[in-house]
Amino acid sequence: MSDPLRLGIAGLGTVGAGVVKIVRQKANLLATRTGRPIEIVAVSARNRDKDRGVRLSDYDWVDDPVALAKRDDVDVLVELMGGSDGPAKAATEAALAAGKDVVTANKAMLAHHGQRLASLAEENDAVLRFEAAVAGGIPVIKALTEGLSGNEITRVMGVMNGTCNYILTRMESAGLSYREAFDEAHDLGYLEADPELDVGGIDAGHKLALLASIAYGTQVAFSGVTMEGIGKVSIDDIRQAADMGYKIKLLGVARMTGRGLEQRMTPCLVPQTSPLGQLEGGTNMVVIEGDMVGQITLRGPGAGEGPTASAVMGDVMDIARGLRIPTFGKPASALIEAQPAKMVTPAPYYLRMRLLDKPGALAKIATALGEAGISINRMRQYDHSSDTAPVLIVTHKTTRDALDRAIGAMSTTGVLSSDPVALRIEQV
Amino acid sequence: MSDPLRLGIAGLGTVGAGVVKIVRQKANLLATRTGRPIEIVAVSARNRDKDRGVRLSDYDWVDDPVALAKRDDVDVLVELMGGSDGPAKAATEAALAAGKDVVTANKAMLAHHGQRLASLAEENDAVLRFEAAVAGGIPVIKALTEGLSGNEITRVMGVMNGTCNYILTRMESAGLSYREAFDEAHDLGYLEADPELDVGGIDAGHKLALLASIAYGTQVAFSGVTMEGIGKVSIDDIRQAADMGYKIKLLGVARMTGRGLEQRMTPCLVPQTSPLGQLEGGTNMVVIEGDMVGQITLRGPGAGEGPTASAVMGDVMDIARGLRIPTFGKPASALIEAQPAKMVTPAPYYLRMRLLDKPGALAKIATALGEAGISINRMRQYDHSSDTAPVLIVTHKTTRDALDRAIGAMSTTGVLSSDPVALRIEQV
Repeated sequence: MSDPLRLGIAGLGTVGAGVVKIVRQKANLLATRTGRPIEIVAVSARNRDKDRGVRLSDYDWVDDPVALAKRDDVDVLVELMGGSDGPAKAATEAALAAGKDVVTANKAMLAHHGQRLASLAEENDAVLRFEAAVAGGIPVIKALTEGLSGNEITRVMGVMNGTCNYILTRMESAGLSYREAFDEAHDLGYLEADPELDVGGIDAGHKLALLASIAYGTQVAFSGVTMEGIGKVSIDDIRQAADMGYKIKLLGVARMTGRGLEQRMTPCLVPQTSPLGQLEGGTNMVVIEGDMVGQITLRGPGAGEGPTASAVMGDVMDIARGLRIPTFGKPASALIEAQPAKMVTPAPYYLRMRLLDKPGALAKIATALGEAGISINRMRQYDHSSDTAPVLIVTHKTTRDALDRAIGAMSTTGVLSSDPVALRIEQV
Repeated sequence: MSDPLRLGIAGLGTVGAGVVKIVRQKANLLATRTGRPIEIVAVSARNRDKDRGVRLSDYDWVDDPVALAKRDDVDVLVELMGGSDGPAKAATEAALAAGKDVVTANKAMLAHHGQRLASLAEENDAVLRFEAAVAGGIPVIKALTEGLSGNEITRVMGVMNGTCNYILTRMESAGLSYREAFDEAHDLGYLEADPELDVGGIDAGHKLALLASIAYGTQVAFSGVTMEGIGKVSIDDIRQAADMGYKIKLLGVARMTGRGLEQRMTPCLVPQTSPLGQLEGGTNMVVIEGDMVGQITLRGPGAGEGPTASAVMGDVMDIARGLRIPTFGKPASALIEAQPAKMVTPAPYYLRMRLLDKPGALAKIATALGEAGISINRMRQYDHSSDTAPVLIVTHKTTRDALDRAIGAMSTTGVLSSDPVALRIEQV
């Protein structure tokens, strides 16, 4: 049996406490599976006095996570503090600069500083791993970086924010309005302190940017992610979509196109009968498409103490076993800076709007679409009692640019009573 | 860039040809991702003259796969010949004995000789990897051995024979009899030369035995797998199951129980709305449940040139990257010999039978169940025009032993017109 692998854990929230529990309770299992004992030598968190339900007195307590990261007796920094900058970044940089390996669950930090941290790791012969940062307990980083690495990836997609999926599921199953479902998620503690991180698609966008980097060998480019939140999705949209055999999901899609790297995190319609369409509540799903393998779908819990700690331990055990691969699957210097391409892949779109009840209103809308080169697959005007008429249109394949031109033209006709809702129909 | 990793490929069927294509066409991608060029130096197959659609003249041709395995310029034997014994085993043993790594897609060889080959690999500091042997392109061996290795696995399940799933799907969707669907699969070339490998559950049983070994740290015990094929499943069963909200799948389940390792590959009812229930055609699915992570579901193509070659290349690239882990996730000497436990976990069962149209017939069946301690959840006798009455029973949770006792008692009552069909309802 080799020397122990010694961990310093920075951040003792639910995930940190979960990691401590696994290391304490499964010492034999971890050692047999990796060939090395895995030990915690020191921990760090903001509040020393809090009861976390795990015994911490066996470990040195270090107030400053940077000091923890630099300790001679720490082989691996386990960074579970969160936050894109501040102590998490400082401690990660300190550990890597000292040649220590880092395991982190911090999607925001990697989405913003991934390239720089990957370079720093490689300059110092350290590894930086982040399975827990994407899709909770699902070993998707491993699948993409290792298992499927003989493939050119043609598309990677995912529903990776459980809170958004919970809200959309509740709107559908309980007939709640967006606001009611949002408030329910809030009361259950599912939302981040800044809810926009969830419902604005930012958190899921961070994850998508990390997947795209591995999939396409590109530098992490979170700024290139087109993000639309779920706030504009109404119960009407959910019902209309269901009526046509679709569900609405906050779906991330990354693909390399002739015009650059397309990354988008937007509410989309997907077929009810597809694995993505059948995903409910807080469960996550990532779909990876490769030129050799075809389509691989991975499904599992996207958050929580156990699943996230499981992912952290997977990384720790890889390090214990001597697996040393570049952060994003290729050396940082080989990652290319991709041209961002904003939603260039054509798709059918779902459009919902309300028209003023004037003669010729529908014709003006149809004309605006026709003049933008968009043909209509289905169009329906509903029976109505108010003075505005609800209209639903499904287009044939078109680009987002053409659609935006058409919507712009519609708004000059004077027949719209409000801005149309436009949702992409993703072929999955 | 390090020295090239040099492959010798034994077996040039569709998968072998697929591997050759990837290595030829993706040389740059493979080298950037692994840090080493990956090259083929020699190949071997039975028939040198066959056109395989790939250029082989750049490689040495070796008639004897054992000679190929022993070549000084081969670092990794890629064994794609198949067969549990014979040349595949001889070449694998020769390579491992010479300290060379082996990548194989050969589930039969590992199911029968896994323990011995794993020991041989470790004695010679070689690695033996087999991602392609289980569930085609799905990186499930990697997920279980590495990504989820911080978990105690509580259950592993899978639909891992695409041909059986195709037959069952066609019976349901096209209303075919088992025989008609079987013949269709045969005409499409989906069946093995010995069809019993597919429809008898043997092929899927091999795969289950490999998953169980990794999941529970046990020596591969294919002889401990309880196997029932799909031949007894009728279109009536499929319709009755659908009527109650279930689908019938050839489902493998492995779990460690208080009485030993339970491994079974049998037709089961699973809820229509579950991911397993929604699986159609040749797609495979593996469900892994761990104490920390909860339930992880992996879905993808279970066979074919591209998916299988993708899995082979994942293993080859791991070796190129220096990943060296024991064959079944723990050192071979640490794998325990598990007591086999035959279907001990209780479950509800679906029972279908035909009764002779005699007074008291149904009462005798109900009594047989009651005397075996089995309570009935639903029971239905159908309207019938023939002189036998179709009867459907769903029991509450019971053991297979108790059920077999009840069926034995039923057969002595003289009211059965044929043997009852009993299918487990697996809670997924």
